[in-house]
Amino acid sequence: MADGGYEKEVQVMKSKLLKQDIMKAIHDLSQFGQDECGGLTRLLYDEHWVAAQRHLKMSMEEAGLNVHFDAVGNLYGSAKGSRYQDQTILIGSHIDTVKNGGIYDGQYGIIAGLLATAHLKKHFGDPVRNIEVVSICEEEGSRFPYVFWGAKNVLGLGGKEEVLNIDDESGISFVKAMQGAGFDFCDEKTPPRTDIKAFLELHVEQGCVLEKQKKSLGIVEGIVGQRRFTVELTGESNHAGTTPMSYRKDAVHAAAEMISKILQRCREHGDPLVTTVGRIDVKPNVVNVVPGQVEFTIDTRHPDRKVLEDMTKDIREIISTVAVCFDVDYCLDMWMDENPVPMDNALTKIIETECIRNGVDYMKMYSGAGHDAQLMAQHVPTALIFVPSHRGISHSPHEHTDGEDLAMGVETLIATLYELAYKDEVKGIQVTA
Amino acid sequence: MADGGYEKEVQVMKSKLLKQDIMKAIHDLSQFGQDECGGLTRLLYDEHWVAAQRHLKMSMEEAGLNVHFDAVGNLYGSAKGSRYQDQTILIGSHIDTVKNGGIYDGQYGIIAGLLATAHLKKHFGDPVRNIEVVSICEEEGSRFPYVFWGAKNVLGLGGKEEVLNIDDESGISFVKAMQGAGFDFCDEKTPPRTDIKAFLELHVEQGCVLEKQKKSLGIVEGIVGQRRFTVELTGESNHAGTTPMSYRKDAVHAAAEMISKILQRCREHGDPLVTTVGRIDVKPNVVNVVPGQVEFTIDTRHPDRKVLEDMTKDIREIISTVAVCFDVDYCLDMWMDENPVPMDNALTKIIETECIRNGVDYMKMYSGAGHDAQLMAQHVPTALIFVPSHRGISHSPHEHTDGEDLAMGVETLIATLYELAYKDEVKGIQVTA
Repeated sequence: MADGGYEKEVQVMKSKLLKQDIMKAIHDLSQFGQDECGGLTRLLYDEHWVAAQRHLKMSMEEAGLNVHFDAVGNLYGSAKGSRYQDQTILIGSHIDTVKNGGIYDGQYGIIAGLLATAHLKKHFGDPVRNIEVVSICEEEGSRFPYVFWGAKNVLGLGGKEEVLNIDDESGISFVKAMQGAGFDFCDEKTPPRTDIKAFLELHVEQGCVLEKQKKSLGIVEGIVGQRRFTVELTGESNHAGTTPMSYRKDAVHAAAEMISKILQRCREHGDPLVTTVGRIDVKPNVVNVVPGQVEFTIDTRHPDRKVLEDMTKDIREIISTVAVCFDVDYCLDMWMDENPVPMDNALTKIIETECIRNGVDYMKMYSGAGHDAQLMAQHVPTALIFVPSHRGISHSPHEHTDGEDLAMGVETLIATLYELAYKDEVKGIQVTA
Repeated sequence: MADGGYEKEVQVMKSKLLKQDIMKAIHDLSQFGQDECGGLTRLLYDEHWVAAQRHLKMSMEEAGLNVHFDAVGNLYGSAKGSRYQDQTILIGSHIDTVKNGGIYDGQYGIIAGLLATAHLKKHFGDPVRNIEVVSICEEEGSRFPYVFWGAKNVLGLGGKEEVLNIDDESGISFVKAMQGAGFDFCDEKTPPRTDIKAFLELHVEQGCVLEKQKKSLGIVEGIVGQRRFTVELTGESNHAGTTPMSYRKDAVHAAAEMISKILQRCREHGDPLVTTVGRIDVKPNVVNVVPGQVEFTIDTRHPDRKVLEDMTKDIREIISTVAVCFDVDYCLDMWMDENPVPMDNALTKIIETECIRNGVDYMKMYSGAGHDAQLMAQHVPTALIFVPSHRGISHSPHEHTDGEDLAMGVETLIATLYELAYKDEVKGIQVTA
């Protein structure tokens, strides 16, 4: 199939169908889980989740895909390859939502995969290797205290022991919820899949970078590493009127100085380093008592582990220096240390080439948030594509992405899938037989 | 009566009785209101309060004083003057406690007055003008949302309308509680007292200045003025991973910078200015969200109103400058503005002279906390004497003052009362007929 033909088709599609198709598909799928606050609440294995997966199954069947669920409830729809049936290009994202979330987070990536595959099949027939769309059962961790249950099972990495004894807020066990939705644990004798040659995820940015930079699309180079700390300061609670400043061990004054210096240090370092002090708890927290105790958190992220290590050193140095200065004791606990996860270079390059060829106004960027791609990338070549989030709002009913941008994402996916699944050889990717 | 005789007596007393007398009297009175946490909880008009006042009444009677309650429950025991019965030197403090308070706050001042008066009567006979010991019914405001009910009624200043519709935590009305204890509102036709020529209060410092300065006694020059503010900052809640630093409106970063600068400014100004940020509330207060809202309080105190005005200007300037810098909106609300209250110069001077004469290692200081003396000083010449609080701890079962210091306070009170009530003329005080 010649490139000229493909490009012509894309033009036709752009002008006619794609935007409406996407909007309609998202609207249809958003019936399942509408909550009273105008958002989507569709939690792993609940009735809305079951209904959404059933709806998607039907849509996949209508698109002529071979459809099946795996044991735990990941839904797959595949267009079988004509030549290399042991090679699969996997595309998709997660079907679950946070509580009172938006209609783009997760499900946009599934719909994009489905529409792209349907489009390619319709216009170009069967691919040379399998294209498989996956609706991943869980990513948000919003019902049970566990994340990436879906992606882990896509890869055959189980996680059974870790969910055996966890319950949701109302006391329903993970196992009971899963069985109630008609699923159960994978047969552990099933060997992990070896056919996945690439995983592509299309997702809303959940940040404001693309919008601020006036770009339609982001090609993610990597997902940032992340460290989280809790800082406990112990000074001395005193009467706010009777304790001269020089006799105080004021935990709030010390905390303010630390927070101010740490965030300033982060700003001085520059993008893409981000640092957040999101939680502060003061004791006793009353107007007329010099506070004896403060606890606050630090969350710092960067795509380069070395930078995170340097920032950690800076944090330690600032805290120890200020603590001495204000005569307070401190305890600094690093309770999360996640490595950065780079996306696959060759895949990223293919997407970039397609963007240039199709005149997409893209930028390369990092993802500051976790995604299924973060788990997948550690096992198979993975790429992650962002479309803009209006004002960066996410995990909210106010989440919004313009139709044009949604379409631009799917077009880019189509162009990329064409390269990956319709050609015998793909530069940089081990796909040929 | 010659000074020589008095001094001899004081020496005898010091070596023999006073310390034990005070300790025993405090111990006896502390039976009433012992709580399960090892502290004193004796709230206005409760059963323990009634029992404590009855016990004190008996002690006063045993000391040969003429005893009576006023309508609202202030208890008075007086040694009638032999010459000037229209002139009264009033001494005392409050009988109520905070919840789970210590055994010195308040009641020490009543016992000190009682012991001093009994001592003087025993050794020197009747004073030339009345000495009256008062057990003030309420100062802490720990049962009902109202303070200085006792002192206001000592002065005939009522406050009836303000307590008519207030309840305690369990819904019992102020009026019902008062009537249950056997009291009622004052007859409003009773004219305010004009006989009080001086009010003396002896109290624990509730701060650590005397202990740090290794002084046995503090002569209070004035009670600080006090301003309280609430600062509300509104930035923008954002994803901690996907929002670059330069796109943030981080209310915590702004608050940290403000708090740090305000407290630093206060330290630079020097004693006795104190400033406290006691309460911080962050929203949404989770580790991985850039906080969009912060509310914090500021409490600032100084004996000179001009300094408080200057500090207020500084606070406003810091907040407005930092808010612009961090692109957050702010609202600064000053909801308390209490004037400083100076103690009476002449009385303070008399106490100082007595301290020097008796070799008391005293210092002059300000009170950062409110006391009955704060209300009284606005109407009658008033003096306030502090004894040290171990480690500045107060409003706690761990409140402690050494027996020697307790005795030193009473000795100073005796010496001062002798000057005020046993002599026809007192320098600087309008007491002669």
